[in-house]
Amino acid sequence: MAQRLIVIGGDAAGMAAASQARRRRDRADLEIVAFERGHYTSYSACGIPYWISGLVPEPEALIARDPDTFRGKFQIDVRIRHEVTAIDLDRREVVARDLEGGREVRERFDELVYAAGAVPVKPAFARTDVGGVFGMQTLDDGAALRDWLESEPKPRRAVVVGGGYIGVELAEALILRGLSVTLVEQADQPMATVDGDMAELVADAMTGIGIHIRTGLGVTGLEERDGRISAVVTAEGPIPADVVVLGLGVRPNTELAKAAGLPLGPTGAIRVDRRMRVPDLPGVWAAGDCVECLHLVSGMPVHVPLGTHANKQGRVAGINIGGGYATFTGVIGTAVTKVCDLEVGRTGLREKDAVAAGFEFVSVVAESTNRAGYYPGARTMTVKLIAERPRGRLLGAQIVGWSEAAKRIDALAVAVWNGMTVDEMTSLDLGYAPPYAPVWDPVLIAARKAVDALISSAR
Amino acid sequence: MAQRLIVIGGDAAGMAAASQARRRRDRADLEIVAFERGHYTSYSACGIPYWISGLVPEPEALIARDPDTFRGKFQIDVRIRHEVTAIDLDRREVVARDLEGGREVRERFDELVYAAGAVPVKPAFARTDVGGVFGMQTLDDGAALRDWLESEPKPRRAVVVGGGYIGVELAEALILRGLSVTLVEQADQPMATVDGDMAELVADAMTGIGIHIRTGLGVTGLEERDGRISAVVTAEGPIPADVVVLGLGVRPNTELAKAAGLPLGPTGAIRVDRRMRVPDLPGVWAAGDCVECLHLVSGMPVHVPLGTHANKQGRVAGINIGGGYATFTGVIGTAVTKVCDLEVGRTGLREKDAVAAGFEFVSVVAESTNRAGYYPGARTMTVKLIAERPRGRLLGAQIVGWSEAAKRIDALAVAVWNGMTVDEMTSLDLGYAPPYAPVWDPVLIAARKAVDALISSAR
Repeated sequence: MAQRLIVIGGDAAGMAAASQARRRRDRADLEIVAFERGHYTSYSACGIPYWISGLVPEPEALIARDPDTFRGKFQIDVRIRHEVTAIDLDRREVVARDLEGGREVRERFDELVYAAGAVPVKPAFARTDVGGVFGMQTLDDGAALRDWLESEPKPRRAVVVGGGYIGVELAEALILRGLSVTLVEQADQPMATVDGDMAELVADAMTGIGIHIRTGLGVTGLEERDGRISAVVTAEGPIPADVVVLGLGVRPNTELAKAAGLPLGPTGAIRVDRRMRVPDLPGVWAAGDCVECLHLVSGMPVHVPLGTHANKQGRVAGINIGGGYATFTGVIGTAVTKVCDLEVGRTGLREKDAVAAGFEFVSVVAESTNRAGYYPGARTMTVKLIAERPRGRLLGAQIVGWSEAAKRIDALAVAVWNGMTVDEMTSLDLGYAPPYAPVWDPVLIAARKAVDALISSAR
Repeated sequence: MAQRLIVIGGDAAGMAAASQARRRRDRADLEIVAFERGHYTSYSACGIPYWISGLVPEPEALIARDPDTFRGKFQIDVRIRHEVTAIDLDRREVVARDLEGGREVRERFDELVYAAGAVPVKPAFARTDVGGVFGMQTLDDGAALRDWLESEPKPRRAVVVGGGYIGVELAEALILRGLSVTLVEQADQPMATVDGDMAELVADAMTGIGIHIRTGLGVTGLEERDGRISAVVTAEGPIPADVVVLGLGVRPNTELAKAAGLPLGPTGAIRVDRRMRVPDLPGVWAAGDCVECLHLVSGMPVHVPLGTHANKQGRVAGINIGGGYATFTGVIGTAVTKVCDLEVGRTGLREKDAVAAGFEFVSVVAESTNRAGYYPGARTMTVKLIAERPRGRLLGAQIVGWSEAAKRIDALAVAVWNGMTVDEMTSLDLGYAPPYAPVWDPVLIAARKAVDALISSAR
């Protein structure tokens, strides 16, 4: 009799696991059932802001593979609009409810992949069920926001609550749609993913395109009129709003896992080993935005919900379920984002991460240009490096620049990955040609500056 | 009494050495004299094509520091239009001729930096002193070509001889100026700096903008009319030309060094150690396009004339002369170039280099996109990886793509530098966001493909 694999969650991690398992084991050997609460499988949540802005015209473009493709080509029994409500590890069964019909089914499994993703962090204020207030996590959320933006009376004033990636990207999207936008952030800077000095550059760019930024300010409630949002309430008074987007980040979706006895780690996400196995629970796997993983620089567990990791982790789980061998070794916190024409990249530890992990370090910021200074279109590019004292190992890096800047973080990410010292980095053979770099690449300039800082700090 | 440093060659390497030495030793301790044959110091030869095309309007923009800056701020006695004609190592003197006045001077030295750069490879045909035929190495060459292009009768038909970086860049520049351009290359592909399969993509792009490419064809002579070029002669008949640019590459400028007894290596360039000292000749240093250096992947000496290396090497020599410690450890052959909108990057070994060095390897080519497929402006990006068998160490990589592609070679360069295996590379934490990469970065896709190829090749 065929074994059965049940997958909980039909997005990147779950479907990557299912497809990889299928590649290695055919249907006679392994039946695969995937439950997905929403309407879609394998879509790019990261692309939602660009659909909101109109840059991406149709939501279908964000879907990598639809349920029918999985059912046909991959012979995976995908059940959308099905919510798994319980996992019984003793009986090796899951209970799922059909959200359309209401019917409940029980399905046995030999292997289980828990890939339930993440859920939005709820704001401190009690109610969010006001017309014109949106979370932004799923395609359905995106569709609801688009409908609201296009309905009469046309919203003109938007408030984005939270200045992380999704908040910043949505603020840009709403500006592009012609709304006036205020971004409210409780911390003293937007883009907490980079250090304050670099975040200032981002904030300047956002202000430059007309986004009104209010930092150090919490939203404490909502005001409504006739069932529609009219303002957000803050300690500094109300901010009028016809539409509010909540971008307070996400937390791992672990309710079901916790109830079933899957172990959670210090980050609150599910613990897994390098092969994406849940420890001490044979045949149980987890992957994606619901798990924690190892930060290879700090050596500490972290929760980094990001599509690229979810895909890799799902693939690793699927290969192992399929009888192969693959591992997910960890992350170093690389991320890139676009704020209008400004490009931001980061990798490794920020200063505060380095402090928290107990490192002694120097940090330097070097300003240079993305192209030879004389080449048309040369723009400022700022590189920050954080290097461990006294040996100079690169702990982290951040880049802010105006074009062709963000993906340059990859070279620094590979340097962090390999534990390079800034001293060795000054010798790196990086690409040089006037359209792409000054003769001293910005990365090399920053590395030289870091070496000088290490020498000064040793005195 | 102050010691004396004589620098032969006032471009990147020579002036970097002089300035670094000056930073560490003041004039009372070290007098510095720099001889430069041309009119300029420290200029970007790599920028000349962009001046020819008009993208860079003034040649002054290409000059990083002029002689007066060196004389004033750096207290370096820069003597332009002075050609060093002899080095006497026994008497520790150089002989230099003032090219304007004809006067000869002898100057003693304690330390000598030989940074005479490279000279263009001469074509096989005897005469090149025909009106409208230009080499392209110095700013003076660029000025002469620009004058010719602007003089009456206006040249309409250009032939570029040689399809290396300078040939390709000049072909583009001349197209941008509105000339009809034929590029003649003796080898069976232009851009010999990448493998044939990748060069085809470049050739297609060049053809696409109207450059007529003739490969496998040597120029055997020149035809002239009234002292002006009228055609180049080839085995397949004459190709009419009103202007000819020779881009046959450069060779190290070593005549003077050889005469003085400086040792040359197997590449024909000057041998130096890691500190840029000429072996067995205390107080004699060399740097820049006239020296050979270690290729860190093949372990063999190479001659790679490139401004970025010249700057680094000069800096290393200068720091050491100044009493500090610095080394130039070697190169891995990273280079980027722009052919109209096409971007090309390479690092490490090409297939033929890997064969020559005795490696067994697999090579894979993966086609992907520079952005998420649904994000506006997503374009094809092709990544080639060459990995050693059986362990999978990355030996080399090439990228051809349409935008934001070239500098992605840096991540691969850092991977080559660190001796990463393609297997480990599949785990790399690279920047992901829809405007900058698909969820599986092209580099990761290529690494996965290389792992598969290694497995297949092991069977």
